[in-house]
Amino acid sequence: MNDRMFSFIGGTEGPWRVERVMAVKGDTLAKPARVKIASGLIPDATDNTWTLRGVTSNQRYTTQEENKKLVSVQEGLNRPEATCAALIPIRKNAAWWAMSQDQRRDILEKHSKHIEIGLRYLPAIARKLHHSRDLGEPFDFITWFEFAPTHTHEFDELLHALRASEEWNYIDREVDIRLVRGVA
Amino acid sequence: MNDRMFSFIGGTEGPWRVERVMAVKGDTLAKPARVKIASGLIPDATDNTWTLRGVTSNQRYTTQEENKKLVSVQEGLNRPEATCAALIPIRKNAAWWAMSQDQRRDILEKHSKHIEIGLRYLPAIARKLHHSRDLGEPFDFITWFEFAPTHTHEFDELLHALRASEEWNYIDREVDIRLVRGVA
Repeated sequence: MNDRMFSFIGGTEGPWRVERVMAVKGDTLAKPARVKIASGLIPDATDNTWTLRGVTSNQRYTTQEENKKLVSVQEGLNRPEATCAALIPIRKNAAWWAMSQDQRRDILEKHSKHIEIGLRYLPAIARKLHHSRDLGEPFDFITWFEFAPTHTHEFDELLHALRASEEWNYIDREVDIRLVRGVA
Repeated sequence: MNDRMFSFIGGTEGPWRVERVMAVKGDTLAKPARVKIASGLIPDATDNTWTLRGVTSNQRYTTQEENKKLVSVQEGLNRPEATCAALIPIRKNAAWWAMSQDQRRDILEKHSKHIEIGLRYLPAIARKLHHSRDLGEPFDFITWFEFAPTHTHEFDELLHALRASEEWNYIDREVDIRLVRGVA
Protein backbone atom coordinates (compact mmCIF):
# COMPACT_ATOMS: atom_id res chain seq x y z
CA MET A 1 0.00 0.00 0.00
CA ASN A 2 1.01 3.63 -0.36
CA ASP A 3 -0.65 6.95 0.48
CA ARG A 4 -1.34 7.71 -3.19
CA MET A 5 -4.02 5.01 -3.46
CA PHE A 6 -7.71 5.96 -3.45
CA SER A 7 -11.04 4.21 -3.78
CA PHE A 8 -14.20 5.81 -5.10
CA ILE A 9 -17.04 3.96 -3.43
CA GLY A 10 -20.47 4.27 -5.01
CA GLY A 11 -23.24 3.31 -2.60
CA THR A 12 -25.51 4.94 -0.04
CA GLU A 13 -22.91 6.92 1.90
CA GLY A 14 -20.54 9.82 1.42
CA PRO A 15 -20.50 13.59 1.00
CA TRP A 16 -21.20 13.51 -2.75
CA ARG A 17 -24.71 12.93 -4.07
CA VAL A 18 -24.83 11.43 -7.55
CA GLU A 19 -26.90 13.52 -9.94
CA ARG A 20 -26.36 11.58 -13.13
CA VAL A 21 -24.45 8.64 -14.60
CA MET A 22 -23.98 8.74 -18.35
CA ALA A 23 -22.18 6.20 -20.54
CA VAL A 24 -20.20 8.20 -23.09
CA LYS A 25 -18.69 5.10 -24.70
CA GLY A 26 -19.05 1.40 -23.87
CA ASP A 27 -20.86 -0.05 -20.89
CA THR A 28 -22.27 2.24 -18.24
CA LEU A 29 -22.03 1.90 -14.47
CA ALA A 30 -25.06 1.61 -12.19
CA LYS A 31 -26.17 4.85 -10.51
CA PRO A 32 -25.47 4.86 -6.77
CA ALA A 33 -27.10 7.42 -4.43
CA ARG A 34 -23.78 8.73 -3.12
CA VAL A 35 -20.03 8.48 -3.56
CA LYS A 36 -17.37 8.53 -0.90
CA ILE A 37 -13.64 8.74 -1.49
CA ALA A 38 -11.50 6.55 0.78
CA SER A 39 -7.75 6.17 1.14
CA GLY A 40 -6.23 2.89 0.04
CA LEU A 41 -7.47 0.15 -2.25
CA ILE A 42 -10.78 -0.91 -0.72
CA PRO A 43 -12.10 -4.31 -1.89
CA ASP A 44 -15.56 -4.60 -3.46
CA ALA A 45 -18.35 -4.94 -0.90
CA THR A 46 -21.80 -6.32 -1.65
CA ASP A 47 -23.54 -3.37 -0.04
CA ASN A 48 -21.89 -0.93 -2.47
CA THR A 49 -22.94 -0.32 -6.08
CA TRP A 50 -19.32 -0.28 -7.28
CA THR A 51 -15.83 0.59 -6.15
CA LEU A 52 -13.29 2.18 -8.50
CA ARG A 53 -9.65 2.19 -7.43
CA GLY A 54 -6.65 4.21 -8.61
CA VAL A 55 -3.29 5.61 -7.63
CA THR A 56 -1.90 9.08 -8.22
CA SER A 57 1.50 8.81 -9.83
CA ASN A 58 4.34 10.65 -11.54
CA GLN A 59 3.53 12.64 -14.64
CA ARG A 60 3.60 10.62 -17.83
CA TYR A 61 3.50 13.23 -20.62
CA THR A 62 3.75 16.76 -19.22
CA THR A 63 6.96 18.66 -19.95
CA GLN A 64 8.73 20.90 -17.45
CA GLU A 65 7.52 23.96 -19.37
CA GLU A 66 3.91 22.80 -19.39
CA ASN A 67 4.14 21.83 -15.75
CA LYS A 68 5.32 25.33 -14.78
CA LYS A 69 2.23 26.81 -16.46
CA LEU A 70 -0.07 24.29 -14.77
CA VAL A 71 1.40 24.81 -11.31
CA SER A 72 1.21 28.60 -11.65
CA VAL A 73 -2.56 28.61 -12.26
CA GLN A 74 -4.14 25.40 -10.97
CA GLU A 75 -6.01 25.18 -7.68
CA GLY A 76 -6.53 22.23 -5.38
CA LEU A 77 -9.56 20.19 -4.47
CA ASN A 78 -11.90 21.01 -1.57
CA ARG A 79 -12.49 24.68 -2.38
CA PRO A 80 -15.67 25.70 -0.49
CA GLU A 81 -17.28 27.09 -3.68
CA ALA A 82 -16.51 23.95 -5.71
CA THR A 83 -19.67 22.05 -4.84
CA CYS A 84 -19.92 20.28 -8.20
CA ALA A 85 -17.82 17.29 -9.11
CA ALA A 86 -17.39 14.83 -11.94
CA LEU A 87 -15.96 11.34 -11.66
CA ILE A 88 -14.89 10.17 -15.11
CA PRO A 89 -13.40 6.69 -15.48
CA ILE A 90 -11.97 5.94 -18.93
CA ARG A 91 -10.30 3.01 -20.63
CA LYS A 92 -7.98 3.26 -23.64
CA ASN A 93 -7.72 0.51 -26.23
CA ALA A 94 -4.89 -1.95 -26.95
CA ALA A 95 -3.62 0.16 -29.88
CA TRP A 96 -2.96 3.07 -27.50
CA TRP A 97 -1.01 1.00 -25.01
CA ALA A 98 1.04 -0.72 -27.73
CA MET A 99 2.41 2.62 -28.95
CA SER A 100 5.77 3.95 -27.87
CA GLN A 101 6.09 6.98 -25.60
CA ASP A 102 6.75 9.50 -28.40
CA GLN A 103 3.80 8.24 -30.45
CA ARG A 104 1.44 8.59 -27.47
CA ARG A 105 2.82 12.04 -26.59
CA ASP A 106 2.33 13.19 -30.21
CA ILE A 107 -1.30 12.12 -30.19
CA LEU A 108 -2.00 13.44 -26.69
CA GLU A 109 -0.52 16.90 -27.11
CA LYS A 110 0.77 17.66 -30.62
CA HIS A 111 -2.45 16.48 -32.29
CA SER A 112 -5.00 16.64 -29.47
CA LYS A 113 -3.77 19.53 -27.25
CA HIS A 114 -4.90 17.64 -24.15
CA ILE A 115 -2.68 19.65 -21.77
CA GLU A 116 -3.29 22.97 -23.56
CA ILE A 117 -7.07 22.49 -23.51
CA GLY A 118 -6.99 21.65 -19.80
CA LEU A 119 -4.94 24.78 -19.10
CA ARG A 120 -7.64 27.00 -20.62
CA TYR A 121 -10.04 25.94 -17.88
CA LEU A 122 -7.71 26.57 -14.95
CA PRO A 123 -8.12 27.54 -12.19
CA ALA A 124 -11.92 27.09 -12.46
CA ILE A 125 -11.74 23.33 -12.90
CA ALA A 126 -9.59 21.46 -10.36
CA ARG A 127 -8.63 17.91 -11.22
CA LYS A 128 -6.87 14.87 -9.87
CA LEU A 129 -5.82 11.95 -12.07
CA HIS A 130 -5.67 8.40 -10.75
CA HIS A 131 -4.02 5.53 -12.65
CA SER A 132 -5.88 2.23 -12.56
CA ARG A 133 -4.65 0.10 -15.46
CA ASP A 134 -1.65 -1.44 -13.75
CA LEU A 135 -3.78 -2.25 -10.71
CA GLY A 136 -5.84 -4.62 -12.85
CA GLU A 137 -8.94 -2.41 -12.67
CA PRO A 138 -11.63 -2.32 -15.39
CA PHE A 139 -10.78 1.32 -16.23
CA ASP A 140 -7.30 2.73 -17.05
CA PHE A 141 -7.79 6.15 -15.46
CA ILE A 142 -10.17 7.79 -13.03
CA THR A 143 -10.25 11.56 -13.07
CA TRP A 144 -11.96 13.52 -10.32
CA PHE A 145 -12.92 17.11 -11.16
CA GLU A 146 -14.28 19.85 -8.85
CA PHE A 147 -15.78 23.18 -9.86
CA ALA A 148 -18.31 25.80 -8.77
CA PRO A 149 -21.87 25.48 -10.16
CA THR A 150 -21.29 28.62 -12.26
CA HIS A 151 -18.50 26.82 -14.13
CA THR A 152 -20.56 23.81 -15.18
CA HIS A 153 -20.83 25.13 -18.72
CA GLU A 154 -17.05 25.59 -18.99
CA PHE A 155 -16.56 22.07 -17.69
CA ASP A 156 -18.87 20.69 -20.35
CA GLU A 157 -16.95 22.67 -22.97
CA LEU A 158 -13.67 21.19 -21.74
CA LEU A 159 -15.04 17.65 -22.05
CA HIS A 160 -16.49 18.42 -25.47
CA ALA A 161 -13.09 19.64 -26.73
CA LEU A 162 -11.27 16.57 -25.38
CA ARG A 163 -13.85 14.15 -26.72
CA ALA A 164 -13.52 15.69 -30.20
CA SER A 165 -9.74 15.16 -30.22
CA GLU A 166 -7.72 12.45 -31.97
CA GLU A 167 -6.73 11.04 -28.57
CA TRP A 168 -10.36 10.13 -27.87
CA ASN A 169 -10.34 7.72 -30.84
CA TYR A 170 -8.30 5.47 -28.57
CA ILE A 171 -10.86 5.52 -25.78
CA ASP A 172 -13.12 2.49 -25.75
CA ARG A 173 -14.98 3.07 -22.50
CA GLU A 174 -15.96 6.27 -20.71
CA VAL A 175 -18.55 6.96 -18.05
CA ASP A 176 -19.41 10.50 -16.95
CA ILE A 177 -20.67 10.71 -13.37
CA ARG A 178 -21.83 14.09 -12.02
CA LEU A 179 -22.07 14.81 -8.33
CA VAL A 180 -23.08 17.58 -5.94
CA ARG A 181 -21.58 18.04 -2.52
CA GLY A 182 -23.37 17.95 0.78
CA VAL A 183 -26.95 17.79 -0.43
CA ALA A 184 -29.12 15.66 1.84
CA MET B 1 -5.98 -8.50 -11.26
CA ASN B 2 -4.55 -8.72 -14.75
CA ASP B 3 -2.26 -11.19 -16.56
CA ARG B 4 0.66 -8.76 -16.48
CA MET B 5 1.16 -9.15 -12.72
CA PHE B 6 3.98 -11.31 -11.36
CA SER B 7 5.39 -12.25 -7.98
CA PHE B 8 8.99 -13.24 -7.35
CA ILE B 9 8.89 -15.52 -4.34
CA GLY B 10 12.14 -16.08 -2.47
CA GLY B 11 12.03 -19.19 -0.29
CA THR B 12 12.82 -22.86 -0.51
CA GLU B 13 11.05 -23.68 -3.79
CA GLY B 14 11.32 -22.88 -7.46
CA PRO B 15 13.45 -23.60 -10.52
CA TRP B 16 16.02 -20.89 -9.75
CA ARG B 17 18.71 -21.45 -7.12
CA VAL B 18 20.03 -18.24 -5.55
CA GLU B 19 23.80 -17.96 -5.86
CA ARG B 20 24.33 -14.54 -4.33
CA VAL B 21 22.45 -11.54 -2.94
CA MET B 22 24.38 -8.27 -2.99
CA ALA B 23 23.19 -4.86 -1.80
CA VAL B 24 24.41 -2.36 -4.38
CA LYS B 25 22.79 0.60 -2.60
CA GLY B 26 20.66 0.80 0.55
CA ASP B 27 19.36 -2.15 2.54
CA THR B 28 19.90 -5.66 1.27
CA LEU B 29 17.38 -8.51 1.12
CA ALA B 30 17.85 -11.82 2.93
CA LYS B 31 19.23 -14.66 0.80
CA PRO B 32 16.64 -17.35 0.09
CA ALA B 33 17.63 -20.80 -1.23
CA ARG B 34 15.44 -20.56 -4.32
CA VAL B 35 13.17 -18.21 -6.26
CA LYS B 36 9.97 -19.04 -8.05
CA ILE B 37 8.03 -16.72 -10.34
CA ALA B 38 4.25 -16.84 -9.99
CA SER B 39 1.45 -15.13 -11.88
CA GLY B 40 -0.55 -12.53 -10.00
CA LEU B 41 0.15 -10.52 -6.88
CA ILE B 42 0.84 -13.14 -4.22
CA PRO B 43 0.63 -11.90 -0.61
CA ASP B 44 3.58 -12.32 1.76
CA ALA B 45 3.69 -15.73 3.43
CA THR B 46 5.61 -16.46 6.61
CA ASP B 47 7.30 -19.52 5.10
CA ASN B 48 8.91 -17.40 2.38
CA THR B 49 11.97 -15.16 2.78
CA TRP B 50 10.38 -12.35 0.75
CA THR B 51 7.95 -11.74 -2.08
CA LEU B 52 8.51 -8.98 -4.65
CA ARG B 53 5.59 -7.99 -6.85
CA GLY B 54 5.39 -6.10 -10.12
CA VAL B 55 3.39 -5.56 -13.29
CA THR B 56 4.63 -5.35 -16.86
CA SER B 57 3.25 -2.23 -18.50
CA ASN B 58 3.37 0.09 -21.48
CA GLN B 59 6.71 1.64 -22.37
CA ARG B 60 7.47 4.84 -20.52
CA TYR B 61 10.49 6.32 -22.36
CA THR B 62 11.32 4.30 -25.48
CA THR B 63 10.66 6.00 -28.81
CA GLN B 64 9.23 4.24 -31.85
CA GLU B 65 12.68 4.33 -33.49
CA GLU B 66 14.39 2.81 -30.45
CA ASN B 67 11.67 0.24 -30.09
CA LYS B 68 12.13 -0.93 -33.70
CA LYS B 69 15.82 -1.56 -32.99
CA LEU B 70 15.03 -3.39 -29.73
CA VAL B 71 12.36 -5.59 -31.28
CA SER B 72 14.61 -6.48 -34.24
CA VAL B 73 17.38 -7.92 -32.02
CA GLN B 74 16.00 -8.87 -28.61
CA GLU B 75 15.19 -12.44 -27.62
CA GLY B 76 12.68 -13.74 -25.11
CA LEU B 77 13.03 -15.44 -21.76
CA ASN B 78 13.27 -19.23 -21.32
CA ARG B 79 15.99 -19.91 -23.89
CA PRO B 80 17.46 -23.34 -23.02
CA GLU B 81 21.02 -21.99 -22.95
CA ALA B 82 20.11 -19.05 -20.69
CA THR B 83 20.64 -20.84 -17.38
CA CYS B 84 21.83 -17.73 -15.52
CA ALA B 85 19.48 -15.07 -14.24
CA ALA B 86 19.58 -11.86 -12.27
CA LEU B 87 16.72 -10.36 -10.29
CA ILE B 88 17.43 -6.69 -9.67
CA PRO B 89 14.92 -4.64 -7.69
CA ILE B 90 15.63 -0.89 -7.63
CA ARG B 91 14.03 2.17 -6.08
CA LYS B 92 14.43 5.71 -7.38
CA ASN B 93 14.35 8.73 -5.08
CA ALA B 94 11.72 11.45 -4.67
CA ALA B 95 13.68 13.89 -6.87
CA TRP B 96 13.37 11.47 -9.80
CA TRP B 97 9.64 11.03 -9.45
CA ALA B 98 9.02 14.76 -9.01
CA MET B 99 10.55 15.52 -12.41
CA SER B 100 8.47 15.98 -15.53
CA GLN B 101 8.51 13.44 -18.37
CA ASP B 102 10.99 15.34 -20.56
CA GLN B 103 13.42 15.85 -17.68
CA ARG B 104 13.37 12.14 -16.84
CA ARG B 105 13.76 11.16 -20.49
CA ASP B 106 16.74 13.52 -20.86
CA ILE B 107 18.50 11.95 -17.89
CA LEU B 108 17.59 8.38 -18.85
CA GLU B 109 18.65 8.49 -22.49
CA LYS B 110 20.26 11.79 -23.56
CA HIS B 111 22.66 11.84 -20.61
CA SER B 112 22.74 8.22 -19.48
CA LYS B 113 22.18 6.21 -22.71
CA HIS B 114 20.12 3.66 -20.79
CA ILE B 115 18.36 2.28 -23.89
CA GLU B 116 21.48 2.49 -26.10
CA ILE B 117 23.62 0.66 -23.51
CA GLY B 118 20.99 -2.08 -23.18
CA LEU B 119 20.89 -2.48 -26.98
CA ARG B 120 24.62 -3.28 -27.09
CA TYR B 121 24.01 -6.42 -25.05
CA LEU B 122 21.17 -7.80 -27.15
CA PRO B 123 20.33 -10.52 -27.92
CA ALA B 124 22.68 -12.11 -25.34
CA ILE B 125 20.88 -10.58 -22.36
CA ALA B 126 17.09 -11.04 -22.29
CA ARG B 127 15.18 -8.85 -19.90
CA LYS B 128 11.71 -8.18 -18.55
CA LEU B 129 10.82 -5.04 -16.62
CA HIS B 130 8.14 -5.03 -13.92
CA HIS B 131 6.72 -1.84 -12.41
CA SER B 132 6.16 -1.92 -8.65
CA ARG B 133 5.98 1.67 -7.41
CA ASP B 134 2.28 2.23 -8.02
CA LEU B 135 1.47 -1.09 -6.38
CA GLY B 136 2.82 0.27 -3.10
CA GLU B 137 5.81 -2.09 -3.12
CA PRO B 138 9.14 -1.27 -1.40
CA PHE B 139 10.94 -1.16 -4.78
CA ASP B 140 9.93 0.85 -7.87
CA PHE B 141 11.06 -1.66 -10.50
CA ILE B 142 12.00 -5.30 -10.65
CA THR B 143 14.02 -6.37 -13.66
CA TRP B 144 14.52 -10.04 -14.46
CA PHE B 145 17.46 -10.87 -16.77
CA GLU B 146 18.38 -14.19 -18.38
CA PHE B 147 21.64 -15.09 -20.14
CA ALA B 148 23.96 -18.00 -20.90
CA PRO B 149 26.86 -18.59 -18.45
CA THR B 150 29.31 -17.49 -21.18
CA HIS B 151 27.70 -14.03 -21.17
CA THR B 152 28.07 -13.38 -17.45
CA HIS B 153 30.97 -11.01 -18.08
CA GLU B 154 28.94 -9.00 -20.63
CA PHE B 155 26.08 -8.81 -18.17
CA ASP B 156 28.39 -7.43 -15.48
CA GLU B 157 29.70 -4.89 -18.00
CA LEU B 158 26.13 -3.80 -18.79
CA LEU B 159 25.37 -3.24 -15.10
CA HIS B 160 28.66 -1.41 -14.61
CA ALA B 161 27.85 0.99 -17.46
CA LEU B 162 24.34 1.70 -16.15
CA ARG B 163 25.53 2.16 -12.56
CA ALA B 164 28.11 4.70 -13.72
CA SER B 165 25.43 6.80 -15.48
CA GLU B 166 23.78 10.03 -14.30
CA GLU B 167 20.46 8.17 -14.01
CA TRP B 168 21.90 6.02 -11.24
CA ASN B 169 22.38 9.11 -9.04
CA TYR B 170 18.61 8.93 -8.58
CA ILE B 171 18.66 5.35 -7.36
CA ASP B 172 18.52 5.04 -3.61
CA ARG B 173 18.14 1.27 -3.27
CA GLU B 174 19.36 -1.57 -5.44
CA VAL B 175 19.83 -5.26 -4.71
CA ASP B 176 21.55 -7.59 -7.19
CA ILE B 177 20.39 -11.20 -6.90
CA ARG B 178 22.08 -13.84 -9.08
CA LEU B 179 20.48 -17.18 -9.83
CA VAL B 180 21.15 -20.41 -11.70
CA ARG B 181 18.44 -22.55 -13.22
CA GLY B 182 17.65 -26.12 -12.37
CA VAL B 183 20.54 -26.86 -10.07
CA ALA B 184 19.57 -29.25 -7.26
